Amino acid sequence: MKESGCVKVERRVMEPGKLALKYHPFYKGKIQVTLKCSVRSYDDFAIWYTPGVAEPSREISRNPDLVFEYTNRGNTVAIISDGTRVLGLGKIGPEAGLPVMEGKSLLFKYLGGVDAYPLVINIHDPDRIIEFVKALEPSVGGINLEDIETPKCFYILEKLREEMSIPVWHDDQQGTATAVLAGLINALKLVGKSFQDIVVALIGAGAANIAIARILFKAGVDPGKMRVVDSRGVLHQGRSDLEKIKESNPWKYELALKTNKDGVQGGIAEALRDADVVIGMSRPGPDVIKKEWISGMADDPIVFACANPVPEIWPWDAKEAGARIVATGRSDFPNQVNNCLGFPGIFRGALEVRAKTITDEMCIEAAREIARVAEEKGLREDHILPTVEEWEVFPREAVVVGMKAIEQGVARLKMSREELYDRSVEKIRNARETVRVMMEEGLIPPPPED
Amino acid sequence: MKESGCVKVERRVMEPGKLALKYHPFYKGKIQVTLKCSVRSYDDFAIWYTPGVAEPSREISRNPDLVFEYTNRGNTVAIISDGTRVLGLGKIGPEAGLPVMEGKSLLFKYLGGVDAYPLVINIHDPDRIIEFVKALEPSVGGINLEDIETPKCFYILEKLREEMSIPVWHDDQQGTATAVLAGLINALKLVGKSFQDIVVALIGAGAANIAIARILFKAGVDPGKMRVVDSRGVLHQGRSDLEKIKESNPWKYELALKTNKDGVQGGIAEALRDADVVIGMSRPGPDVIKKEWISGMADDPIVFACANPVPEIWPWDAKEAGARIVATGRSDFPNQVNNCLGFPGIFRGALEVRAKTITDEMCIEAAREIARVAEEKGLREDHILPTVEEWEVFPREAVVVGMKAIEQGVARLKMSREELYDRSVEKIRNARETVRVMMEEGLIPPPPED
Repeated sequence: MKESGCVKVERRVMEPGKLALKYHPFYKGKIQVTLKCSVRSYDDFAIWYTPGVAEPSREISRNPDLVFEYTNRGNTVAIISDGTRVLGLGKIGPEAGLPVMEGKSLLFKYLGGVDAYPLVINIHDPDRIIEFVKALEPSVGGINLEDIETPKCFYILEKLREEMSIPVWHDDQQGTATAVLAGLINALKLVGKSFQDIVVALIGAGAANIAIARILFKAGVDPGKMRVVDSRGVLHQGRSDLEKIKESNPWKYELALKTNKDGVQGGIAEALRDADVVIGMSRPGPDVIKKEWISGMADDPIVFACANPVPEIWPWDAKEAGARIVATGRSDFPNQVNNCLGFPGIFRGALEVRAKTITDEMCIEAAREIARVAEEKGLREDHILPTVEEWEVFPREAVVVGMKAIEQGVARLKMSREELYDRSVEKIRNARETVRVMMEEGLIPPPPED
Repeated sequence: MKESGCVKVERRVMEPGKLALKYHPFYKGKIQVTLKCSVRSYDDFAIWYTPGVAEPSREISRNPDLVFEYTNRGNTVAIISDGTRVLGLGKIGPEAGLPVMEGKSLLFKYLGGVDAYPLVINIHDPDRIIEFVKALEPSVGGINLEDIETPKCFYILEKLREEMSIPVWHDDQQGTATAVLAGLINALKLVGKSFQDIVVALIGAGAANIAIARILFKAGVDPGKMRVVDSRGVLHQGRSDLEKIKESNPWKYELALKTNKDGVQGGIAEALRDADVVIGMSRPGPDVIKKEWISGMADDPIVFACANPVPEIWPWDAKEAGARIVATGRSDFPNQVNNCLGFPGIFRGALEVRAKTITDEMCIEAAREIARVAEEKGLREDHILPTVEEWEVFPREAVVVGMKAIEQGVARLKMSREELYDRSVEKIRNARETVRVMMEEGLIPPPPED
């Protein structure tokens, strides 16, 4: 049974890759620019371009905020990557990152109604990246950083959040943390434990887990009860490389100081002993996490094994070792921890209220709403998260994110929940309908036959 | 009659501005992102995004040129402006420039089938702008600089053309020069004069006329027979401010050295005396050029009065003073010298053959083809240029531009004229059909009623 499971998995992992290699050159790209306004005749060019366009330009020069009324800036996001940590592929360069960023742009539009320009850049110095992104501010309503290596991604995100007055988001940090939190909310409900009481082991100390730690603390997890494992073992105050970490990665250093108050030492085995939850964001498995370590966890273990394409431990192995709930990063297992559940709805909400930033509290609201969507359809050990097919998750997130932004005073516009919901639904509907109509009319041709 | 002409003109100038102020906030932007590939079901996300997308990414990391096959890079252009010289409005800032850049993006797509991201930036130092644009190279197939002040626009363009291996274009320079050249080819045909023999007066020494001078020299005009007038008068070797010009604007200085071998001194009046052609790219008129100065020109004067929104001299005044052919920048007079005739077709051709640059010779070919389209429909004094409604001009330009690129060895792809034509037509047709279908289906709503 395990054998055949493995074979099946192998085939399913290969299939999308094979089709991707065939379909990408057929379409030569996944996104394009189109018009948002009508062209009834060529006379309309005099309205959209010179001479007519001078009037809105003049008005904006008097009051720059009008740019949100007269242009698409308020619905536009730039996806920025320097190609230094693309998917599980590592430092493959900006060109090689472009198919991924176009894919992200596709998801932004199809799921969230957001217009995202994929901009891969051939500069890698953090301060130069910061300067590049800041220069873009007048063009966009938000920034999505993507696939930028640690630790510079922390520095870039922090600095840009300080210095820009539009939301800056690093999906590998906040996006992943939001999806994990959503799953964990429901998992804890099922096992009847609370954030305040659990012992959590984080396997991997990269962008995702460092952000997950921060968000979990805000959700109530006791830092002292968290154990973070990097490639050299559990972080603790006595680690001999602590000074080196302090210099190279102050974010990880901070975690080393405030987590693990029991001073657990060792590796993943020791970190998992008596833990309630393990969150793997490390390297492709299987066997990064071993069955016997799961057996050593507390009652009703919750296992998030999110490495891609192969989780740190196969779900059936985790289950056999006693795991009560297992989540992975994959769509072909139950409980996919999927970033796509987060960013389209979160940005939808942030853009609608013209938020200046996306706070951790806005992420937590989004996570709660994601969890609620799954709960309403029936919480089960194999159903703690919705899938992206349940499109209502996105406008619902937009509502709670936007309302939180208003409450926290980071929104430039105020509106009711109903307005926020209707506007979000309308934009998402329009995006999907456009694709449907283009396919129907042959403007987007069907993919080539086998 | 002149009175009523003036009033009519006033009304027509105002109307698009009024509608623009009403329609821009209605649509909240003129362009958007949409999909280029099919989404048959959510399973397709596994092809377009992780895990499938890893395969094209991996292939590109092995061979970066494949980025043109697997993404939309090859059909994408960035429109870059720092908002320092927007239309006739001057330094109104990047936000205020965005409606113009979105308009340009609309024209790129609707006329040329090119996907253009409007990026307005809040950096103004030329070297920082250069660094910004260079960083973008892996994302785009070409760069369109727009509405950047002189003299820094010359420096930025030169430097970027040297240092990037994709076309870099400043529409206010090469685009305007191409449209002027197209008109002048036909005007000279009508009066039976040749480029080699004519005396040309250029009024204004900004981005447009400095580029026009260079292109006219390449088209056969004798530099010695050209007179260039800036705000202080005709350029000549004895001008007292020559050293200052040398330092602040070497491009203008160079013109001062090589033009006007007769050493004409004075202002516009003197520059026009016995000239065959005057090209005004200066400041809004009327009365920048006076009737009596036109009367002092050689036989069959050709007058291009291209200031916007009001030409340097009203066409009826120029005609009354003896002008044989009059062209302006406006769509409501005959012979509109319109940049939109150039960039969509030129980029279409350059992108199709993956040109590394757009040479002056490619511009000259485009100008000749534009002139040919008008000629085929009957050359008349009030018909020396086609309008943008004659859509065949764009794929035809694409062909001659692409073939010239191949001939000059700056194209990465080779193809036949027929292939180039068919591909261009297909992309332009798809862009227009998409807009038509979206309007028909209500996905782009009609503009608000009066």
